[in-house]
Amino acid sequence: MNEYALLHIPDSRFCFAVSEREVVLRLRAAKEDKAVRVFLVYGEKYGYQNRQRETEMEICYTDRLYNYYEKKLTLTDVRLAYVFRLEEGDRICWFSEDGLTETYDFQLSFYNFFQLPYINPNDVMPVVQWMEDTVFYQIFVDRFYRGDWVKDDSYITMPWGGKPTPKNFAGGDLKGITEKLDYLQKLGVGGIYLTPIFCSDSNHKYDISDYKRVDPQFGTNEDLKQLVKAAHSRGIRVVLDAVFNHCSEHLAQFQDVCRRGRKSPYHSWFVIDGDRPDRSKGNYECFAACDYMPKLNSADPSLQDFLLDVALYWIREADIDGWRLDVSDEVSHSFWRRFRQAVKAEKPECLIVGENWHDAYPYLMGDQYDGIMNYSVTKACLDWFAKETLDAKGMAEKLNSILMRNIWQVNQMMLNLLDSHDTLRFYTETGKNRDRLLAAFALLILLPGAACLYYGTEICMEGGFDPDSRRCFDWNEEHWDMDVWQAFQSLIALKRHPALRGSGICIAEEDGMLVIRRSNKGKCVWLYINLTKEEKLIPERAGQTPLLHRQWGENLLPDGYVIYEEDVK
Amino acid sequence: MNEYALLHIPDSRFCFAVSEREVVLRLRAAKEDKAVRVFLVYGEKYGYQNRQRETEMEICYTDRLYNYYEKKLTLTDVRLAYVFRLEEGDRICWFSEDGLTETYDFQLSFYNFFQLPYINPNDVMPVVQWMEDTVFYQIFVDRFYRGDWVKDDSYITMPWGGKPTPKNFAGGDLKGITEKLDYLQKLGVGGIYLTPIFCSDSNHKYDISDYKRVDPQFGTNEDLKQLVKAAHSRGIRVVLDAVFNHCSEHLAQFQDVCRRGRKSPYHSWFVIDGDRPDRSKGNYECFAACDYMPKLNSADPSLQDFLLDVALYWIREADIDGWRLDVSDEVSHSFWRRFRQAVKAEKPECLIVGENWHDAYPYLMGDQYDGIMNYSVTKACLDWFAKETLDAKGMAEKLNSILMRNIWQVNQMMLNLLDSHDTLRFYTETGKNRDRLLAAFALLILLPGAACLYYGTEICMEGGFDPDSRRCFDWNEEHWDMDVWQAFQSLIALKRHPALRGSGICIAEEDGMLVIRRSNKGKCVWLYINLTKEEKLIPERAGQTPLLHRQWGENLLPDGYVIYEEDVK
Repeated sequence: MNEYALLHIPDSRFCFAVSEREVVLRLRAAKEDKAVRVFLVYGEKYGYQNRQRETEMEICYTDRLYNYYEKKLTLTDVRLAYVFRLEEGDRICWFSEDGLTETYDFQLSFYNFFQLPYINPNDVMPVVQWMEDTVFYQIFVDRFYRGDWVKDDSYITMPWGGKPTPKNFAGGDLKGITEKLDYLQKLGVGGIYLTPIFCSDSNHKYDISDYKRVDPQFGTNEDLKQLVKAAHSRGIRVVLDAVFNHCSEHLAQFQDVCRRGRKSPYHSWFVIDGDRPDRSKGNYECFAACDYMPKLNSADPSLQDFLLDVALYWIREADIDGWRLDVSDEVSHSFWRRFRQAVKAEKPECLIVGENWHDAYPYLMGDQYDGIMNYSVTKACLDWFAKETLDAKGMAEKLNSILMRNIWQVNQMMLNLLDSHDTLRFYTETGKNRDRLLAAFALLILLPGAACLYYGTEICMEGGFDPDSRRCFDWNEEHWDMDVWQAFQSLIALKRHPALRGSGICIAEEDGMLVIRRSNKGKCVWLYINLTKEEKLIPERAGQTPLLHRQWGENLLPDGYVIYEEDVK
Repeated sequence: MNEYALLHIPDSRFCFAVSEREVVLRLRAAKEDKAVRVFLVYGEKYGYQNRQRETEMEICYTDRLYNYYEKKLTLTDVRLAYVFRLEEGDRICWFSEDGLTETYDFQLSFYNFFQLPYINPNDVMPVVQWMEDTVFYQIFVDRFYRGDWVKDDSYITMPWGGKPTPKNFAGGDLKGITEKLDYLQKLGVGGIYLTPIFCSDSNHKYDISDYKRVDPQFGTNEDLKQLVKAAHSRGIRVVLDAVFNHCSEHLAQFQDVCRRGRKSPYHSWFVIDGDRPDRSKGNYECFAACDYMPKLNSADPSLQDFLLDVALYWIREADIDGWRLDVSDEVSHSFWRRFRQAVKAEKPECLIVGENWHDAYPYLMGDQYDGIMNYSVTKACLDWFAKETLDAKGMAEKLNSILMRNIWQVNQMMLNLLDSHDTLRFYTETGKNRDRLLAAFALLILLPGAACLYYGTEICMEGGFDPDSRRCFDWNEEHWDMDVWQAFQSLIALKRHPALRGSGICIAEEDGMLVIRRSNKGKCVWLYINLTKEEKLIPERAGQTPLLHRQWGENLLPDGYVIYEEDVK
């Protein structure tokens, strides 16, 4: 038995409550030790020394190095003590807080059992239920559609469809989105996520100068309310971009500090080495190296109050359904804790999704965000579908590894995406391979959490790195590949399949294919993806009719996918 | 290289800020891989793909299976990206968020570098500085000393020095402690921690019926103020016991629920299955199986407000210096977050110490407690000094393992103890071995954090399990072993040595002895403990004069310790 590989951390992603009486336990062990049987020996904390029960754990996930055993328990006494008993042939050993031992003395166990001391209901992370069957559509507003033809459009500097530069404007706006809600509804999306819409000099509007006003280029506050109302009437939710890490140098409070220095009540809102911000000295913190975007000091209570007011304002004013948090990993944990408290008190179903490109577990323990933009899945998809640095086996291992970063609830609230305004277009990355684009999106649909489609992906929009990934949507349907469009539509519709809710998932490689099985409440859905050069037979599905497929004859052709459903035996 | 053993978790105990510009990084690797050189390849997050610096990490801790490499960095840009380069002979590999790889592409590193995204000052856990050189004295109030001879003492049911039973009373009180402050000052203690003192039927007072009133058996609120004032004038701090997990059935609010059921505004303060608590049905949650101690529902906002008011009341009213949190692991994280915010806002140096017997990392991330009662050290001391199930090597490994559970700051705020009112007396556990008792206490003194002496340990008080560990202090000095008493006094005085502050520590086994080296600001202190049956020569200290010692001739005798100091080279 490979002792070095064993890992369990109580009250963490390895042991967490999923409801007031249910707890999930995980133990990590070496992949080579798959013959090791793991038993969870558990009981009520008070009395554990004399009474234990046991249940065998199963390997539910496998990554490159490790197997992860998992078990859900339903408790009567919510004070849980436990250790693991490992059996390998004749050898029996015990894994407790003291590590692996040949014997275990339950009489002294109060010193070194693992425990979930008590399930307090307010520590149980709830799932924002609507996330589980939602496909989002991310819109870079200036480039989606222009609906307002009477506004002052002197700011527009590129014809619709022109080549994007970092600073040009095409004229897309909120009214345009409202007009296209029928289109989005037809496509089947259940949520739209808008890049920032508040007053700002730039086309991307990540440098905000007035947090309570929609930028006139995009419309009015009333237009936003209308958009949300019209979206809601179609069952579509609206998530806005909270740019709380930094602002525009034109924010009134920053300007006040520029004028009055330390005498300004807003000096502490920023991180300034000296009396006044001085661009030539670079004496203030900013986003990346962008000196026109001063960093907001999220440690400052008064700045925190200001941002919380903004967050609640748009929930109350426009009834938005969530906030996507820009550069959220650079904002303080303690601010996000206040943010969650305030937002969830106002609207419990309001989604909080961070922009963290990395393992974000410290933000996803239940006290900060619900989920993140799942760029680790993006990277894995790039590595398998586009760069081919992973094969199906490596992909399965990687996806399992990503799932193991978080608790069930968080996985169910992830925003899974292939690309965004901050990456190259996935379609471009695949060398314009429509089959692979669709297969990758099918994979997103099968993953727990929401899937997110970057605007125009359904019409195979191309684009290199920023600003090229922010081209104008081409509304000329004659240019579209309707076959691809309809395949997207079908995959999006599949997201509402009951088997795709919950946490039941198995991801593995089989005969060179990636196979994902989701199961829930008596139903399951299977996805097979074949990125090999060969046709693949799927003998165990012989005679069954696929629910959806592409590149499918009797066999699964290269770059194809096929999806089955069945009742769980 | 043992890949299974490699572990690094960003923004955790493996990567944490210790000040606004300083960060500590740790990498875990297999002990057998001690020849592996580890380089930290780090840089500014924005620009990391093009510019990296590197520094070699050193093995600072070793437990049974693993070495822990550690490095402190001082940053200019507080947005840190990093990966590890591992060298084993000719083999070079990289450890990133994607695991171990033979190559690493810095151009794509934004997807998988490790990072500390930004050091926000409010996320940096501060050290309560006075904890570092304090020796606490834990007092079980009813059994320490009676100072009030005019109070109604009809409740007293045992003569001073009688045999403790679960329910008898000996008469100790706050005035008694105040009278003995000179004694405690002479002993050298810097803090006293009192088991609960508020209104309660029991001798231990863990079942509180009035949180804002000192129990008349122990004195008045005024007596508490006088005690704290008198203690402060001697440089002694006072920590009280916050029993917030449960209360007495006689608490007015519980009684109100008993009378009015769901009509009581306090119904939600408790966890009741039904309208009214019914002892015969066992329909309400309580502490352990004690139905006279109903559990408080720390998920309830109004109960939270009540407890926060209590916490602040005693800080404001009596100027206490800290709260020890009873059964703190069964109280909700979200309550402790509010508690910390409130307490630290009122008095930043106010200590928060949880009663968690296990790895308490989820409570020790900076948003909840400062430290815990370090029962893992208690258990290790029992295993080595008393039960001999560990040898010096095993002890060194265990102590290193315990240090690795937490960040530097938390280790510096641990309450290290040999015993308490909830254990057998350590002296009794050693079979009344005075040398071993002192050697164990010397070990506590050398550990980062405060040491805690359970009342009477300095006079070798004996005691089995509760209630026997709660005997009356024997004030007849003729019964004392003054040699032991003075050895305690000397060890307590040593706690103020400048080398014993900070995080510099090395714990190892050498020739069968345990060796602990603490270093700070140009000074270091060495402790050697010999629990073998043989005399031990310490050649590297030949000719140096020990600072303190016991069982020491020219060599270190069985059960002895010796302490040296020297300037750091």
